[in-house]
Amino acid sequence: MPTAMAPAETNRRIAPARRAPLQIAPAAASNASGPRKIGRMSTEAAARSVPSARSTLARFDADICSCSHMRVIALLTDFGTRDGYVGAMKGVLAVRAPHACIVDITHDVPAGDVQHAAWVLKTVWSHFPAGTVFLAVVDPGVGSARPAIALGAEDRFAVGPDNGIFTFVADSARAVSLAIPIDASPVFHGRDVFAPVAASLAGGVSLEDIGAPAESPERLPLPRPERRGEVIEAHVIHIDRFGNCVSDVPAAMLGGRPVRVEAGAVRTTRLVRTYAEAREGELVALINSAGHLELATRSGAASERFGIRRGARLLVRLG
Amino acid sequence: MPTAMAPAETNRRIAPARRAPLQIAPAAASNASGPRKIGRMSTEAAARSVPSARSTLARFDADICSCSHMRVIALLTDFGTRDGYVGAMKGVLAVRAPHACIVDITHDVPAGDVQHAAWVLKTVWSHFPAGTVFLAVVDPGVGSARPAIALGAEDRFAVGPDNGIFTFVADSARAVSLAIPIDASPVFHGRDVFAPVAASLAGGVSLEDIGAPAESPERLPLPRPERRGEVIEAHVIHIDRFGNCVSDVPAAMLGGRPVRVEAGAVRTTRLVRTYAEAREGELVALINSAGHLELATRSGAASERFGIRRGARLLVRLG
Amino acid sequence: MPTAMAPAETNRRIAPARRAPLQIAPAAASNASGPRKIGRMSTEAAARSVPSARSTLARFDADICSCSHMRVIALLTDFGTRDGYVGAMKGVLAVRAPHACIVDITHDVPAGDVQHAAWVLKTVWSHFPAGTVFLAVVDPGVGSARPAIALGAEDRFAVGPDNGIFTFVADSARAVSLAIPIDASPVFHGRDVFAPVAASLAGGVSLEDIGAPAESPERLPLPRPERRGEVIEAHVIHIDRFGNCVSDVPAAMLGGRPVRVEAGAVRTTRLVRTYAEAREGELVALINSAGHLELATRSGAASERFGIRRGARLLVRLG
Repeated sequence: MPTAMAPAETNRRIAPARRAPLQIAPAAASNASGPRKIGRMSTEAAARSVPSARSTLARFDADICSCSHMRVIALLTDFGTRDGYVGAMKGVLAVRAPHACIVDITHDVPAGDVQHAAWVLKTVWSHFPAGTVFLAVVDPGVGSARPAIALGAEDRFAVGPDNGIFTFVADSARAVSLAIPIDASPVFHGRDVFAPVAASLAGGVSLEDIGAPAESPERLPLPRPERRGEVIEAHVIHIDRFGNCVSDVPAAMLGGRPVRVEAGAVRTTRLVRTYAEAREGELVALINSAGHLELATRSGAASERFGIRRGARLLVRLG
Repeated sequence: MPTAMAPAETNRRIAPARRAPLQIAPAAASNASGPRKIGRMSTEAAARSVPSARSTLARFDADICSCSHMRVIALLTDFGTRDGYVGAMKGVLAVRAPHACIVDITHDVPAGDVQHAAWVLKTVWSHFPAGTVFLAVVDPGVGSARPAIALGAEDRFAVGPDNGIFTFVADSARAVSLAIPIDASPVFHGRDVFAPVAASLAGGVSLEDIGAPAESPERLPLPRPERRGEVIEAHVIHIDRFGNCVSDVPAAMLGGRPVRVEAGAVRTTRLVRTYAEAREGELVALINSAGHLELATRSGAASERFGIRRGARLLVRLG
Repeated sequence: MPTAMAPAETNRRIAPARRAPLQIAPAAASNASGPRKIGRMSTEAAARSVPSARSTLARFDADICSCSHMRVIALLTDFGTRDGYVGAMKGVLAVRAPHACIVDITHDVPAGDVQHAAWVLKTVWSHFPAGTVFLAVVDPGVGSARPAIALGAEDRFAVGPDNGIFTFVADSARAVSLAIPIDASPVFHGRDVFAPVAASLAGGVSLEDIGAPAESPERLPLPRPERRGEVIEAHVIHIDRFGNCVSDVPAAMLGGRPVRVEAGAVRTTRLVRTYAEAREGELVALINSAGHLELATRSGAASERFGIRRGARLLVRLG
């Protein structure tokens, strides 16, 4: 019998705490989305005026400002970590955006797997500060006719090839096309095209000054989950490092109802809250941290154990 | 015949240098353990007063201060590097602790291997600056009844599940339990519970303001090395990336004496200083960089070559 | 028939842009090579003088200066990412160089593979800012007689074992030998010798104050590409993560002429600009992002598919 989701029980197992949970102020950087002068530039300009306590204060505030709004450049590639590709790109960023904070998301996207990268980008996007520049380079067509773009969406920026890697942020994106510098290596736009542009965006240059307006970014030709009566025809969109099988069904499509999920010959009616609720060898469903329906098992890879691959068709029957 | 350890020879092979070795000043951050106001906050308060050269100076010093004591948040997980889990957590940190320095220790702890993580944490703990916040998330029981905690020990902090991951720092730890925010994903406390708390600690919030006092952290039920007469019954506690087999015997237990180490059918009486002293295919013992007795071989994995697994029982006979 | 290289066509497939490409200012940090006082030190000294608007300004500029010239310490090791070795080294850097920017190049050099590390270092070196300190530790002979060195070359620094890892930057290098502190672990110079020295260099200490002048760094005994008439006898010097086979032939040796490349029984006459131009299963040659001749194929590992290993002899016939 299908198990009902129990949102009311979500916090039943709350950790004990006799004091009120800490109130955490909203992120300081969350309003730093728009391009702005960085502190050092305006300071240099100010330094040409007569020095006084007042102007010193102004400069000081400018510096504080630039620090607190220091831009993050977040890297997402399939370069792997054996070679110098990631390092060369970071070197370029360190030269051109010395004040930016360089953050590795992943360099272990399977080689050339644009869909994998697109999904990872979706799962991290909204968790980064406004103003973040995502440098996303999975680019098997590097140097060919595929356009190079930068885009802004939901107060953040992204730079990379227009090959579908921005599928999940494309709806709200404002894109510009990038010119390829004449001395760029035709096989390493990550280093010679995208990193310099990411550095410029992190330094406050506006999208309009980066390139000419472009069409909406390309989307991968993925099937969409489709509801027919009480059945959703869905798909496995990502297999994660633990072997969990992520579907393209957001929790909202389930409306809080019990489900039965079929993946080929295997099926489950157990919709649990946590991995720990699964029994050894049992396939379960849950709502994952990206808010999507997912198939999993306890301490093991559901993908391998149950032979579920990316792209597999799922039938989700609402109970 | 057992080979005697030769501490007196430790620096026999010193690299040539005609000048005195550089005197390195003690770490600037080493007294930054206690919570303190970060510069930006106090600057904002100060900015409400009348601007003058003096108050500007005060603010400036506050900023210098905040920079030099910028907190490190050091990440240790089993999230792997293929997905967005690490990135999402870093995004949360970048939003909530924009001035902290985010450092990757590892994300390649084998999935769910709490003991592996506990050992890695032990080997890095004391090398980080006072005030460092370790964000340690290997959490197969995420969302279940296992408590979520933060702790302070030896001038540093740690945040994570109370499942034994803090075994090796538990003795001196002062722990508090964490409340689980009502909107936290039950399958990703790393992002929604632990990272926000790590950011708060990095920002100077005190442990008392983070949560209610908790019991001493849970310890893994590991056997301990036991000495009976001239024999120590010991255990392999960790296999490292090179296949070196780390034991639970600290060097002090050997008292500088020659040893014979037996691991099942294989044994060695060669206690060497460096890996380079081992001959091809020879099993040797040495004191590793964590100060523990270790079995190793030259340019190869002792674990694979000699079939020594984690948990294996060792007999260490003092000569 | 050999295909001619077509430099004139390099930008034929330029991405569309109706505006002029962004003019990017030269890297701010590019003149930061020489050792200099870091801002905080000089600020502390200045703070002892009478506070005034003028001196406050001076201090403020000093701080701006220290920030914009903040040194990068770039890490390149074979430590892997499962253990605490990388973390311990980063902890030491965070203590001793709290203002430096720590950047991971790679920790996944195959264990003990000095040549791999040397090539990676070559491909990243010039892309990092002047003043960068490369901490390069692939050190199977750690603790043995091999010297420990630091060097300066082309406005950057490097620290590590003198075992050939600096082969490709040795020509212009000025090296000093390092003393081994008496309490250094003989099996972890990365943490106890090289990291402290890297921190000192990042803090502005000069090479002369680090150690005594040493011989030119050791070079790996690699064959060199040799031209005899219209044939270059070359070698595969590196296999990258994608299975591309990098040769030791810089583009300049080809003089822009058509080529036929033979690797054992396989050969190609197709010299292309980009990976995307290769047909499925076809071996092609191209000039890679390090400016070297490389053998590759489309969406697959040329090394595996065509059985080309590192060290393989290549014959490059100029057309």
